[in-house]
Amino acid sequence: MSLLRRDPTTGRWVVFSDNASPVPVEPGPCAFCEGNEKLTPPEIVAWGRGGRKPNGPGWWVRVVPNARPLFTIEGRLERRADGMYDATSGTGAHEIVVESPEHEHSLSELSPEQVARVLRAYAQRIEDLKRDGRVRSIFIFKNQGVLAGAGRPGHAHSQVIGLPVTPKALKELLEGARTHYQLKERCVFCDILREELAIESRLIQVTDRFVSLSPYASRHPFESWILPREHAMNFESLGGADIDDLAAVLISLLRRLERVLPEPSYNLFLYSGPNHAVHPKRWPTLANDFHWHIQILPRLVHVAGFEVGSGFYANPVTPEQAAAVLRDVL
Amino acid sequence: MSLLRRDPTTGRWVVFSDNASPVPVEPGPCAFCEGNEKLTPPEIVAWGRGGRKPNGPGWWVRVVPNARPLFTIEGRLERRADGMYDATSGTGAHEIVVESPEHEHSLSELSPEQVARVLRAYAQRIEDLKRDGRVRSIFIFKNQGVLAGAGRPGHAHSQVIGLPVTPKALKELLEGARTHYQLKERCVFCDILREELAIESRLIQVTDRFVSLSPYASRHPFESWILPREHAMNFESLGGADIDDLAAVLISLLRRLERVLPEPSYNLFLYSGPNHAVHPKRWPTLANDFHWHIQILPRLVHVAGFEVGSGFYANPVTPEQAAAVLRDVL
Repeated sequence: MSLLRRDPTTGRWVVFSDNASPVPVEPGPCAFCEGNEKLTPPEIVAWGRGGRKPNGPGWWVRVVPNARPLFTIEGRLERRADGMYDATSGTGAHEIVVESPEHEHSLSELSPEQVARVLRAYAQRIEDLKRDGRVRSIFIFKNQGVLAGAGRPGHAHSQVIGLPVTPKALKELLEGARTHYQLKERCVFCDILREELAIESRLIQVTDRFVSLSPYASRHPFESWILPREHAMNFESLGGADIDDLAAVLISLLRRLERVLPEPSYNLFLYSGPNHAVHPKRWPTLANDFHWHIQILPRLVHVAGFEVGSGFYANPVTPEQAAAVLRDVL
Repeated sequence: MSLLRRDPTTGRWVVFSDNASPVPVEPGPCAFCEGNEKLTPPEIVAWGRGGRKPNGPGWWVRVVPNARPLFTIEGRLERRADGMYDATSGTGAHEIVVESPEHEHSLSELSPEQVARVLRAYAQRIEDLKRDGRVRSIFIFKNQGVLAGAGRPGHAHSQVIGLPVTPKALKELLEGARTHYQLKERCVFCDILREELAIESRLIQVTDRFVSLSPYASRHPFESWILPREHAMNFESLGGADIDDLAAVLISLLRRLERVLPEPSYNLFLYSGPNHAVHPKRWPTLANDFHWHIQILPRLVHVAGFEVGSGFYANPVTPEQAAAVLRDVL
């Protein structure tokens, strides 16, 4: 069982686990390919052809426990004082969404129908994990390429983490959104959408339901966000047609990035509302002030001391330059 | 002139500058070596033998402007609205502290006297930059090794950045310290010192004036902090004997890290109080609640999506394990 500790000076949480050390990829068959289902822990859920047997072939998208989890669903959640400090048991979830039965390397190579299935798997995992009162927030992300920290090159997959605490980066977003709402009685992300649709220079793609754009204070060259145009706190509330549109916008954005940056390393983050039912008083205006969205952060260079130590980023490419390139490249 | 932009959702600042893009190191003589003074911009200050001429040989420690600065001291500081967003001119300082006239590769190879000179240079630069009302905070750091983002391999140097805003990471520390003080009327770092000196398992070295330790929620294996035992907000208030003791503790810590991690990549961060005179009401209890310190963050692996996106770190080595190794290795 892993152990969570909180830094008392910043509120940052750290999980201590042997599984945090990277292990070399062993040669051999890919555990994520169709036909090799026995090489992963038993699946949590999968979608596929009718009549398919669990842990057998015939699936389109498959969710399995991470074989080296940072958080585990077994055991009682224990929060305790540790001298002057705070610690929590590593109770939570650490799952892998295998994005395709074939050995594709990137989400962008999949069909729109397949990407929509992956997004539906995300929504189902969030809904399911929110039923667990020990889970305070769910973080879904994807590491693509070595510079983005992808440990297992090869088969396209995402990670779902269910946490017994609200991680610092999500908390900052939630608090930033709440502060803006308290000041203006408007959602900061809705304000961003209005501003960007009016100015246009940072837009990448606009559909009826979604906007992809280069954010005003992009941390790295070609950082890109996808926001739903209609205000919604939770990703999992998306309807079927919304999901289909989002899949098309996401594939388009990844293909644009791949045209501009050959074999790009990037992280994809899905920021959606925390498990509100567990903690309703902590975020009383959440439904009004938070707006789920996707951030894609290309990783071109190693993040240096200045960024890590100050939280201040340095970027040689303005979002206006980046958006102009990404708009026209497809 | 570079441009600063603030992310409205998190308060994170980003500096946009052509100088943010890495450039390949050109072959040729080292601009930081004694005798090559003409290869850097004219020096800001240097310490050396009596009768030495500026920008000539005979120095022990030399401070020069960064040839590719992210912030520049020239020009009026302009803070302005940019539609719904906030922007600031890139007014500030970006300096290099050349740590030795010889082409040494690491601070740990220098004599205690020489490291003390480097630390005195830090203090002088902070004092000098605090006289500039445009500078809100000063961040001093060192990148050692490729994984830490060191752009220029070779000659040991640190960077001094004077900023027209308080960067997010320092702000988090200041706010965390203030929150603790408001609750307990005690400095959180003084509390940490008392706790760690009592428990002992996370201590690396203890002298009359300083403690080096593995922090409770270490982000990476062998993260290490050096704290002054006596409460002090500002690094630059250190006396001469304190500086000599700190130099010895710092060299000892770096040598311990080098024994455990061959050719380690690490970042060194000096967190000291902001330019309080510029903004006294923003941090009314600063002198009581903030405690300067040094953080050394070894960089063993690439920081992956989970850390970047969630602000949650995963670490396979507990600080108790790390401190036991570092204590006994010298």
